[in-house]
Amino acid sequence: MQSTAAATATIANTVNPAREARLAIRRGAHNTHTGGVAPGHVQANMVILPAEYAQEFQTYCMLNPKPCPLLAISDPGDPSLPTLGEDIDVRTDLSGYRVFEDGEEIDVASDITEYWRDDLVAFPLGCSLSFEEALVQHGVPLYHRERGGRPATYVTNIETTPAGRFHGRIVVSMRAMSPADAIRAVQITTRFPSVHGAPVHIGHPEAIGIEDLDYQQFGGSPPQMRQYDIPVFWACGVTPQIVVETVKPSFCITHLAGRMLVTDLKNTELAIL
Amino acid sequence: MQSTAAATATIANTVNPAREARLAIRRGAHNTHTGGVAPGHVQANMVILPAEYAQEFQTYCMLNPKPCPLLAISDPGDPSLPTLGEDIDVRTDLSGYRVFEDGEEIDVASDITEYWRDDLVAFPLGCSLSFEEALVQHGVPLYHRERGGRPATYVTNIETTPAGRFHGRIVVSMRAMSPADAIRAVQITTRFPSVHGAPVHIGHPEAIGIEDLDYQQFGGSPPQMRQYDIPVFWACGVTPQIVVETVKPSFCITHLAGRMLVTDLKNTELAIL
Repeated sequence: MQSTAAATATIANTVNPAREARLAIRRGAHNTHTGGVAPGHVQANMVILPAEYAQEFQTYCMLNPKPCPLLAISDPGDPSLPTLGEDIDVRTDLSGYRVFEDGEEIDVASDITEYWRDDLVAFPLGCSLSFEEALVQHGVPLYHRERGGRPATYVTNIETTPAGRFHGRIVVSMRAMSPADAIRAVQITTRFPSVHGAPVHIGHPEAIGIEDLDYQQFGGSPPQMRQYDIPVFWACGVTPQIVVETVKPSFCITHLAGRMLVTDLKNTELAIL
Repeated sequence: MQSTAAATATIANTVNPAREARLAIRRGAHNTHTGGVAPGHVQANMVILPAEYAQEFQTYCMLNPKPCPLLAISDPGDPSLPTLGEDIDVRTDLSGYRVFEDGEEIDVASDITEYWRDDLVAFPLGCSLSFEEALVQHGVPLYHRERGGRPATYVTNIETTPAGRFHGRIVVSMRAMSPADAIRAVQITTRFPSVHGAPVHIGHPEAIGIEDLDYQQFGGSPPQMRQYDIPVFWACGVTPQIVVETVKPSFCITHLAGRMLVTDLKNTELAIL
């Protein structure tokens, strides 16, 4: 580890900040959220399941691309994800994991090497940090970022399309913005289907089963709304976590909230237009 | 005229329905609205001004592409628009015109040959019929079409960018739709910048100076709104007409509402993506 970091540091032109971040996380030097880490690089939510669930979950993601935008899929037992980055090891390269047995959380860990099995399949999923970067770069203010928090998050009454044992309701994140910015936000996020894509709803929270915008089931802060703001709702990567807790697979590992896999991909590479 | 129409009719494979429509209008056989005429073809609003205003108005259109999307521009005194269609004569090919002197309407005519001057410049402007066709084709219901009327229209408090003597407020048309359709409508109309493009506002009429959605200054019907509908506002081709009435150029001719120039262009050709 030591020699690799040194070798990388001496070749300034070829430094890969995403790989640097993964190595820092791997050796415990970075042990918190990954927001703001390796700016411009795609970060991924993570779901890890035994092979017996893999095909069903893959189909579930395919049928529900907005909440579950699959960026890659590992071979069973193989902790690498070569299409997402050099030398990725999904057992060590996230700073926090949740480990579930039969839908119950049995551990929160910063390394899952001890839980690894030769039948586990890793599903890295696109994350809203990517489209938020695009929004900010296009001049759309995000209030929660200005406050240093997370976007407000809600369970909706919108059912995902089930696949095998996987089913559940879409969880959404909400960002309030001016009407003009809401129009821009639809345009900008449409370009990024692999990181949740266009909003799933605008304007009327109650139309998708949200009775109270201030109630934060997942512990975030109530949203800020200014006069004439429109609430804009995107499908959220929390969806598959809730699904896993509902479906209760025999074994499952997910990322811990805010602690994503930092990949070598650039957010700009994900734009389809 | 007779021989041309006959010649066209005998060559079924090369019939150009847009040209047929223009010829029918030219000879007085079609003397009403052009909604539904030559489906799939771009129809254009029309502003005709003396050459002394031409450069200023062209700049005004350039600076305000959403309300004033310029499709072409004629040479002074030349009533043809070769880039918009074979054999167009802007003096005869619209079924209704309004003629203004010093901002006052002095005539409503179905032929402006008698008013034509060798310094007049024609400005055909993109029209919402084009993007409405795209919306309907993508499954977005338009209530006013189901009722057989026009969309609701309003003067906003949004100032256009002035150019020379031209200035004024943006007029918008409003279409109410479900939140999911509003998101789709932003995506679809973004593809059509030459026919008003993306909405200028969604959600809060009062934020753009509209106090009462039911008040229809231009004589249309009050809009229909269903539960959870979002009002979606697009810049409207009425804007340059209001501007002309405000600015009071010494002479001006516009199309009469709903009586557009039917061009050879296809709506699908206008899509930028």
